[in-house]
Amino acid sequence: MTAATADVLTKIKRFLAAGPTEGLRRFLREVHYADLAEVLPELNLAQRIKIIRMCEPSKAAAILYQLDRSEVKELLEGLGEWRAAAILREMSTDDAADLLGEMPQEERERFLSLMGAAEAEDVQELLEYGPDTAGGIMTTEFVSVREDVTAQEAIEILRATAPDAETVYYVYVVDKENRLVGVVSLRELILSAPATRVADIMRTEVIRVDVNTDQEEVARIVAKYDFLAVPVVDARNRLLGIVTVDDILDVVEEEATEDILRLANIEYEGRYFESGVVKRATKRLPWLVALMFGELLAGHVIANFSATLSAITALAFFMTVMAGGPGNLATQTLAVVVRGLATGEVNSRAVLGVILGEVRVAVIVGLVSGLVLAGIAYAWQGQTVLGFIVGLSLALSMIVAAIIGSLVPLVINRFGFDPALASGPFITTLMDVCSMLIYFGLATFILHRYLI
Amino acid sequence: MTAATADVLTKIKRFLAAGPTEGLRRFLREVHYADLAEVLPELNLAQRIKIIRMCEPSKAAAILYQLDRSEVKELLEGLGEWRAAAILREMSTDDAADLLGEMPQEERERFLSLMGAAEAEDVQELLEYGPDTAGGIMTTEFVSVREDVTAQEAIEILRATAPDAETVYYVYVVDKENRLVGVVSLRELILSAPATRVADIMRTEVIRVDVNTDQEEVARIVAKYDFLAVPVVDARNRLLGIVTVDDILDVVEEEATEDILRLANIEYEGRYFESGVVKRATKRLPWLVALMFGELLAGHVIANFSATLSAITALAFFMTVMAGGPGNLATQTLAVVVRGLATGEVNSRAVLGVILGEVRVAVIVGLVSGLVLAGIAYAWQGQTVLGFIVGLSLALSMIVAAIIGSLVPLVINRFGFDPALASGPFITTLMDVCSMLIYFGLATFILHRYLI
Repeated sequence: MTAATADVLTKIKRFLAAGPTEGLRRFLREVHYADLAEVLPELNLAQRIKIIRMCEPSKAAAILYQLDRSEVKELLEGLGEWRAAAILREMSTDDAADLLGEMPQEERERFLSLMGAAEAEDVQELLEYGPDTAGGIMTTEFVSVREDVTAQEAIEILRATAPDAETVYYVYVVDKENRLVGVVSLRELILSAPATRVADIMRTEVIRVDVNTDQEEVARIVAKYDFLAVPVVDARNRLLGIVTVDDILDVVEEEATEDILRLANIEYEGRYFESGVVKRATKRLPWLVALMFGELLAGHVIANFSATLSAITALAFFMTVMAGGPGNLATQTLAVVVRGLATGEVNSRAVLGVILGEVRVAVIVGLVSGLVLAGIAYAWQGQTVLGFIVGLSLALSMIVAAIIGSLVPLVINRFGFDPALASGPFITTLMDVCSMLIYFGLATFILHRYLI
Repeated sequence: MTAATADVLTKIKRFLAAGPTEGLRRFLREVHYADLAEVLPELNLAQRIKIIRMCEPSKAAAILYQLDRSEVKELLEGLGEWRAAAILREMSTDDAADLLGEMPQEERERFLSLMGAAEAEDVQELLEYGPDTAGGIMTTEFVSVREDVTAQEAIEILRATAPDAETVYYVYVVDKENRLVGVVSLRELILSAPATRVADIMRTEVIRVDVNTDQEEVARIVAKYDFLAVPVVDARNRLLGIVTVDDILDVVEEEATEDILRLANIEYEGRYFESGVVKRATKRLPWLVALMFGELLAGHVIANFSATLSAITALAFFMTVMAGGPGNLATQTLAVVVRGLATGEVNSRAVLGVILGEVRVAVIVGLVSGLVLAGIAYAWQGQTVLGFIVGLSLALSMIVAAIIGSLVPLVINRFGFDPALASGPFITTLMDVCSMLIYFGLATFILHRYLI
């Protein structure tokens, strides 16, 4: 909470303690809804309901959308049906669909019935689209005009519809079948002579997205073209809605969260810390156990080489380095490749070049750290051959780590899946098996060839 | 590259092969600069220069800003001073500062001297601010008016300055000392009666940021309030510039990249794959070697328990599971906590609650996987005591992993540093030491107490 927001909280508490409500009502009108949404959880339920009641329905709607879903339900129920209905009607259709989409069927229908029939129908329609598609994040509140209106008329239409539209900065131009034929910005409208026909100033090369486009792709388009909004059309090019840049910011945040959690081998929808301990554990357990079997495979490799381990017991002291070092390098390679794919930096390059580049990095890193480790092993245990074994296997394992760390996410990406699914834990477990094979394999080879 | 962009490339190649330039020139006018920036690297230098020459300077500037920095230099030099100057003058000041800021001193000054004196001064000023602050990402091209103008006059001012301003959707209101006193949106201006004074319709509670505010904080504010732009002021509230939402999208992307790389223990500025292999290796090497010493500490623990290891050699087969499993759990915990801190989900909760929650998750996960591993150990090696040792130490280590994985980033965050600095490799290395201590410690205790 910033100092400014903390200040809002202090003032609201003072107003609530003081009693008379006129001052509070005035104060609430001045404060931004995002600040109110941030301080509300600090108050008790009765106080929260009181605050929401005092706000205009449109502001109350904006506040509600920012709250945790569990709180929204409590509040809507505490407010009573009439007030809840007024607030839901004022909510933009995409926000309402988002909110109701996360509720159980029964509650959703009860709240839908509270909304006006027209709004409920719009929201119902939005609920049909996948939540991670353009349809799932678009709003139906935009301004569209027909080609034959003038700039002046377009501005008039804008004036009339502005209070309901989510952005007035683009006016979309449609033909009589509601097919998208052009776009004109508010900026262009006010810069044009009033009598100019919209058809003469509109841009006809409109970048649009299909209603089923993945939200990540929509975000890339908005970011690439620096748009404030992008129009959404169906297969027949009919204009269905728009996705605004504020929703895109949310998508970018959400996708980064998804990538970071996937890299740590967690699949999670929604807010992690909001859910119960058992749900969190059951989400994470299957992969942790699966990876344990992977590590057991590495243990199996060691068991197969137990004769070598008995002959040179000091090999055991270096097992953690031998597993850890290449594992860390593989984790790094995975991170740069996955992020490079997400930002598009890697897509534009030849896949082989990416892998070879990382392998060359690993050769340098492997040689240096291999030499350092060989020196330490010799100094610590006083065995030249041990130094040679640990140094060389570390260097070799690191090169393998670079190949695995880059190849696996690139292959996953090539098959159309999220490369972040090649999580760090998965890659390091795979590396542990490889490292143990290289380490004990090399040790056994040298043992048999030169020592026995 | 999308199908649409690939199509642009095909057409450009056809135009270039055909010879006459009028068609190409017309085509370039229609294509979005972001698409041109994407196809340009596919052409040779002579063709690239030809394309840039044919674009209007403002479009050429937008294209150049999107290209890799090394390409920009080549192009600006190939274009000749006069044309380069024209393009740099058309670039928005924040983009120009960004571009020139990454060049060596000497080149920067040469290009600055090519720009007009006024523009060069603006850019020079922007270069003084830290690149990761509000000052470093703001533009000086915005529209501001004095309080006493009317809505009609404000629109006129907007019309006059629009071609230069980066966003015309907010008009900032300043007093005669250039101090920010209000803001009015273009939407409000066109919705008001023409004779209304701006002072009467402006909002005076303007959310603003200080010029030295960290860009991550600026991004949070823009995202929180759903702004299209936020004004930047100095310590005396004088309006210096604005940060627009398209730059915020870049910041959010950049910060997510920073977090993902930091979580893999890589500190990297700029585009990773653009830099040479040696630079990449030297950036990554120090930490990899440092972590190797951490792993050696774990090896040292094992060496100290070598008597136990000789007594129960099968302990070696489970070392990778014992290091890997808790390491994976710690990585997961780290990821959810770091991401929770970045999105603000964790900030609003009590730190102790976060840690305890994760520990309870670890108790469930640890008990289940400990039991599974105990069963496997018994079945594989036929020793009850071994099953008991591996099962119990896995469960204990996982609980420790949850504490370390959540406590370390929270402490780092408390001291004002980026919690992502508690990288996965660092946490897993620390866990390796702890796991080996628990594993061999428990084994030795049981060995002495019950077996000998």
